Amino acid sequence: MNDRVFELHAYVAASGSVVGGKERNGPLGNLFDMHDSDDRFGQSTWEKAESEMQRRALCIALEKWGRDQNALDAILAGDLLNQCVGSAYGLLDYHVPYFGLYGACSTAALGLMLGACLVSSGYLHHAAAVTSSHNSSAERQYRTPLEYGAQRTPTAQWTVTGASAFILGHERYAGHNSVRVTQAMPGIPIEMGIRDAANMGAAMAPAAVDTLERYFVASGTTPSDFDAIVTGDLGWEGSAIFHDLLYADGIEVAPRHTDCGSMIFSRHTQDTHAGGSGCGCSGVVMSAYFLPKLRSGEIRDMLLIGTGAMMSPDALKQGQCIPAIGHLVRLKGGD
Amino acid sequence: MNDRVFELHAYVAASGSVVGGKERNGPLGNLFDMHDSDDRFGQSTWEKAESEMQRRALCIALEKWGRDQNALDAILAGDLLNQCVGSAYGLLDYHVPYFGLYGACSTAALGLMLGACLVSSGYLHHAAAVTSSHNSSAERQYRTPLEYGAQRTPTAQWTVTGASAFILGHERYAGHNSVRVTQAMPGIPIEMGIRDAANMGAAMAPAAVDTLERYFVASGTTPSDFDAIVTGDLGWEGSAIFHDLLYADGIEVAPRHTDCGSMIFSRHTQDTHAGGSGCGCSGVVMSAYFLPKLRSGEIRDMLLIGTGAMMSPDALKQGQCIPAIGHLVRLKGGD
Repeated sequence: MNDRVFELHAYVAASGSVVGGKERNGPLGNLFDMHDSDDRFGQSTWEKAESEMQRRALCIALEKWGRDQNALDAILAGDLLNQCVGSAYGLLDYHVPYFGLYGACSTAALGLMLGACLVSSGYLHHAAAVTSSHNSSAERQYRTPLEYGAQRTPTAQWTVTGASAFILGHERYAGHNSVRVTQAMPGIPIEMGIRDAANMGAAMAPAAVDTLERYFVASGTTPSDFDAIVTGDLGWEGSAIFHDLLYADGIEVAPRHTDCGSMIFSRHTQDTHAGGSGCGCSGVVMSAYFLPKLRSGEIRDMLLIGTGAMMSPDALKQGQCIPAIGHLVRLKGGD
Repeated sequence: MNDRVFELHAYVAASGSVVGGKERNGPLGNLFDMHDSDDRFGQSTWEKAESEMQRRALCIALEKWGRDQNALDAILAGDLLNQCVGSAYGLLDYHVPYFGLYGACSTAALGLMLGACLVSSGYLHHAAAVTSSHNSSAERQYRTPLEYGAQRTPTAQWTVTGASAFILGHERYAGHNSVRVTQAMPGIPIEMGIRDAANMGAAMAPAAVDTLERYFVASGTTPSDFDAIVTGDLGWEGSAIFHDLLYADGIEVAPRHTDCGSMIFSRHTQDTHAGGSGCGCSGVVMSAYFLPKLRSGEIRDMLLIGTGAMMSPDALKQGQCIPAIGHLVRLKGGD
């Protein structure tokens, strides 16, 4: 039963993206709704700044939607911070039922999938899926404080400072040119022996491959059925492995595949090594880059495979490998 | 729209409970499916022991159900460890689609609610809701390593060493005397100014009150409609506050209310101060104590309000208060 495709009837009513300075200076910089050049968002700590980004991302999405929080039946949210406090504190201003998620960097896709399930089945009319990551809060929690100036390896990804919010509703409420969430497939945790926390791409690529291959079989589709197959976030290293593993199974995604972690920073001028990562990465790239293309019809049918590495620093110190997951969501563009 | 009651059509096909030595020596000790007196479960670290408890709890539930993991469409799981690694590693042996949750000590109720939504709406035929906590892994992560012998305050709760697994299915598959999950209401995060990580009961009680009062209004029910109103886990301190806050609003739950954290340890002989807590607490008490009473018809209609405190140690060090949440699930007993 592990090849179950969820048939969904949801649409994206609005979305918001908030990023830091480095993301603003990247190739997609002028597409984001809001940025703060010094990544602080007026807060005294990086963790509070991350929470503030979530608060603002949802505020922006609600403004674009033209309704207030009373029209939201629930928020689904999670992030990378211990105990997901980026979400818990960031969304406290909203007096809305709350589902806490943990999907590591796959959280944007996990929230889109579960939110779409809950609105499709009528349990909720409208729900928000919110997530975030912050480079400075993530680095000191997962690796070392930035002040140490630790050298990064070539396979290391750069945690994106960004937060995204998507408001989902049942497709019966959708207007013209709405982006619809039509299918999803949850990921299965995969652990292939990778222990290097500076090579998340290698840990996550097999999980993305597993979900995508199960989806193609279960849905009867092939890569050529889609205008875009988007992973978030394998980075340059993980994307290469993703292509190799698929190719070994006779699947060629190259012309259609792109990766949010490979898009958000310039490989040549921004020195992020293997590209971007973090819950916020695929969230803000989806909100700012792909949703407008879906709305305009430039992209009519796409897959997002949100990937997450579900280890903790403590688990790695205890000799554990890195389990990863890939959650798949299919989105279709405007009429 | 914040008073939405979910109408559910799920049943509990089977469940499993695994506990440590102190829980085995408590008033409910002989009801649990499995225990390990030294809390190690054959593992070399407390974190690995916690993962092993989850693995075994689900294994026991599957054995009781009489089917294997291939009959499970998904697992919904979470725990208290950073990045929810208790679940991520504990359930790696199961090759099943995985939804990661974060609800702090409300995770058992959160998993029951979301799992019941997904099976009720037909997205899944059967799903498992799994969670855990371990006293030794929680203490060293949230407070101090046990070896320090830090003195505990009277309001401190004792994190339960325990893991639970519930297998949920659509009620159309239910046999005679099945326990059904008929309604649920998600919690809204509430933060009332409590900063004392040794007084979780005070932080969580207002969240339990908020959800319960919203539920009574939305469902048109009163306390007397239920054989049991069960919180998990306010402990002795939080339960007293829970009663006081409800009483101030003209609601008397005293004869029907009980709390999983107040039930699992002996107040007089086990020196746990304010009672039990942790994701595993309400999970194992539900599985071992309440589900059999529902199945036998001794309890015909009950509410579980799973409560969680969603702070992190870092957030408290940065001066934040403790946000809490209460997720409500209504269960009905056998025919």
